[in-house]
Amino acid sequence: LCPPGVLPLCRRPPAWGRAARQRPGPPLAPCRAFSNNKILVELDESSGVAMMKFKSPPVNSLSLDFLTEFCISLEKLENDRACRGVIFTSAIPKIFSSGLDITEMCGKSTEHYAEFWRAVQEMWLRLYGSNMVTVAAINGSSPAGGCLIALSCDYRIMMENPKFSIGLNEAQLGIVAPFWFKDTFVNVVGHRVAERSLQLGSLHPPPEAHKLGLVDELVPEEKLQEKAAAVMAQWLALPDHARQLTKSMMRKAVLDRLVAHREEDIQNFVSFISKESIQKSLRMYMEMLKKKKS
Amino acid sequence: LCPPGVLPLCRRPPAWGRAARQRPGPPLAPCRAFSNNKILVELDESSGVAMMKFKSPPVNSLSLDFLTEFCISLEKLENDRACRGVIFTSAIPKIFSSGLDITEMCGKSTEHYAEFWRAVQEMWLRLYGSNMVTVAAINGSSPAGGCLIALSCDYRIMMENPKFSIGLNEAQLGIVAPFWFKDTFVNVVGHRVAERSLQLGSLHPPPEAHKLGLVDELVPEEKLQEKAAAVMAQWLALPDHARQLTKSMMRKAVLDRLVAHREEDIQNFVSFISKESIQKSLRMYMEMLKKKKS
Amino acid sequence: LCPPGVLPLCRRPPAWGRAARQRPGPPLAPCRAFSNNKILVELDESSGVAMMKFKSPPVNSLSLDFLTEFCISLEKLENDRACRGVIFTSAIPKIFSSGLDITEMCGKSTEHYAEFWRAVQEMWLRLYGSNMVTVAAINGSSPAGGCLIALSCDYRIMMENPKFSIGLNEAQLGIVAPFWFKDTFVNVVGHRVAERSLQLGSLHPPPEAHKLGLVDELVPEEKLQEKAAAVMAQWLALPDHARQLTKSMMRKAVLDRLVAHREEDIQNFVSFISKESIQKSLRMYMEMLKKKKS
Repeated sequence: LCPPGVLPLCRRPPAWGRAARQRPGPPLAPCRAFSNNKILVELDESSGVAMMKFKSPPVNSLSLDFLTEFCISLEKLENDRACRGVIFTSAIPKIFSSGLDITEMCGKSTEHYAEFWRAVQEMWLRLYGSNMVTVAAINGSSPAGGCLIALSCDYRIMMENPKFSIGLNEAQLGIVAPFWFKDTFVNVVGHRVAERSLQLGSLHPPPEAHKLGLVDELVPEEKLQEKAAAVMAQWLALPDHARQLTKSMMRKAVLDRLVAHREEDIQNFVSFISKESIQKSLRMYMEMLKKKKS
Repeated sequence: LCPPGVLPLCRRPPAWGRAARQRPGPPLAPCRAFSNNKILVELDESSGVAMMKFKSPPVNSLSLDFLTEFCISLEKLENDRACRGVIFTSAIPKIFSSGLDITEMCGKSTEHYAEFWRAVQEMWLRLYGSNMVTVAAINGSSPAGGCLIALSCDYRIMMENPKFSIGLNEAQLGIVAPFWFKDTFVNVVGHRVAERSLQLGSLHPPPEAHKLGLVDELVPEEKLQEKAAAVMAQWLALPDHARQLTKSMMRKAVLDRLVAHREEDIQNFVSFISKESIQKSLRMYMEMLKKKKS
Repeated sequence: LCPPGVLPLCRRPPAWGRAARQRPGPPLAPCRAFSNNKILVELDESSGVAMMKFKSPPVNSLSLDFLTEFCISLEKLENDRACRGVIFTSAIPKIFSSGLDITEMCGKSTEHYAEFWRAVQEMWLRLYGSNMVTVAAINGSSPAGGCLIALSCDYRIMMENPKFSIGLNEAQLGIVAPFWFKDTFVNVVGHRVAERSLQLGSLHPPPEAHKLGLVDELVPEEKLQEKAAAVMAQWLALPDHARQLTKSMMRKAVLDRLVAHREEDIQNFVSFISKESIQKSLRMYMEMLKKKKS
């Protein structure tokens, strides 16, 4: 019953804008919060907007635990008709998310690698395909998988701190961003910018990221939350159903591509990451990070 | 006998630039005009350029009658070897075209919806696939289907009046632009701009439309026709055959996609538009328009 | 053993960045040069960078001989583990390359046309799919096939001389750029810019080429070689293997498309170029060029 090529992204029956929250039912508390170990979620029921805060020290790296919590939290909100939009931000200063947790990819079993990669895929499938409005409030650096989270949202606002940077820098580590990271990136910045940035593994400072279209807007530090709320309100002014179908129409081809090749993608990741040369490269990178810290 | 993947767009045998008009035959009048109820066409045979003026008050909405006349007029010109290019503009102040006529989509039979949608498809297939040079001289607001007409031309010039706007604002009405509106839009502005603009159902004022690449040029009101003629002359300086094959190469994939799914697209539209929730949404929108007028 | 959809581009086993040049073996001379009739190659083994200079007077047109030498030279470097990057430039003042040699396409046998076209394809397949870092140092005008060489590199730097221009101007000659010229162009500048530029057969002066993204950077004449070396060093700072896999991921779809339709593409070219109307058009163009010279 949808226009051609358009299917609802998630299993949730589409909510009908503000009207959806006026149907009969038990009275709802004005604000609910739930938290696991690594992610804090606050839902403001008056606006229909949830805030998802990453709080996994030291750098919000995307460990298997983090990814699992992320998917559970997102699914909870997706199925909660009181929630229409999510703002993603970090509870840790200076870092949005450092990306995939390298310790999950180094010196583990192939079974572990496969489980981990499936969780990374799951995170992206749910976020890029979310029915909700998703806004990234990028309050720190955001390399690799951290950048992917931002790229998968509907809108990206970044603090204009010159110490922050964002990009898919996998090539710098001697590894290759998977095709669906690339597809997501191309959808945001176009083929040429993606080709150059991915090959160089570039981490872009805020003004450059803005110029390239990697983020939509830069704001001074103190304005980030206010701006994120204003953007969210603008997107929520649209009727959910039409917006969701439109989003699905734009993203379906790229989502379908991973769904169609998911097991193959896992096999490829496991083979690639298990190679001794890659393991060595990652160990060297971790050594370097340790030295930097001390 | 064409380069790979390149097929002439229309059935007309390609004209060979200016030479095509010098072949023997009865002498031609310097200017011919024909008019139906809703569209006025003037062909200047000395330049090979036709002007197609929309004159369907109050807002040039794309009714079934308008679309039928549009297709007949365009086919006439396509088959007229004296015509190499068409400029589209409005004979009504402040509005280029208000887009699809909502009265055709509201409270009618499913047969009517199917017939109407086939006419919308036909209009786009003929215009986006035209062998002629097509220039939109946008002298008023141009939402939804009006924007599609502009997007389907080879070049877009817009009056820089701050009261005008242009965009695919379907989402604002609770409906979804079909995939081939989206494909046409993406071909002009790229994936990211299209994703955001479609989800928000944005109507862009001229400077923003220009910045996004949705229109190619802004001109002061009094310069529009002069500019359109100059752009047309620039495009007609090229040999028709090579230009036509190149245009076909660029647009064929997107045209073929609708041709391959045309009946399915009609079915989808009819099912979607027949839903009570959508009918209600359109009725509310029409009420709002009526109140605005009075 | 590669991530999904990622295959090494060439047959050469991937080198591992700088480490690749530190393996045991016979000591290497600091600089080697080889030259055929039309191309001069200098390889600086300390940096791993080769300079390929086109020196085929009067205008570096891509004749069958030139293309053959180009492919042999590129393959030599591709298989030379001492070489990681190539800078392409012209040894002839004011012209980078004038593109395909029209004399190869005019008044010859169909067998000759087929052989010539296969050589053009081969040049592009090797260059666009090269494992090495490729930088175009554009020190003169670069129409048609000359522009294709530049577009196929990883990075384009152009002298900002207002007398120079660059573009795929085939339509001006009454011919049509093949689909893989178009695909390469779209990957660099996007669909809209490509559509307009190809239909008009535009030759863009340096500032316009830069604005459209057709070249990445403009430099004053005396800075070109220095800048090319600096850009090359930046790209070579990345580990080769990851960069090569990333490049392949970005370019594979477009390369595969020609590989899949190569014979068909040759047939189409031969049929098209053999047409009397096209031959006439090319003869007129050659006459015009001759008159210009004298």
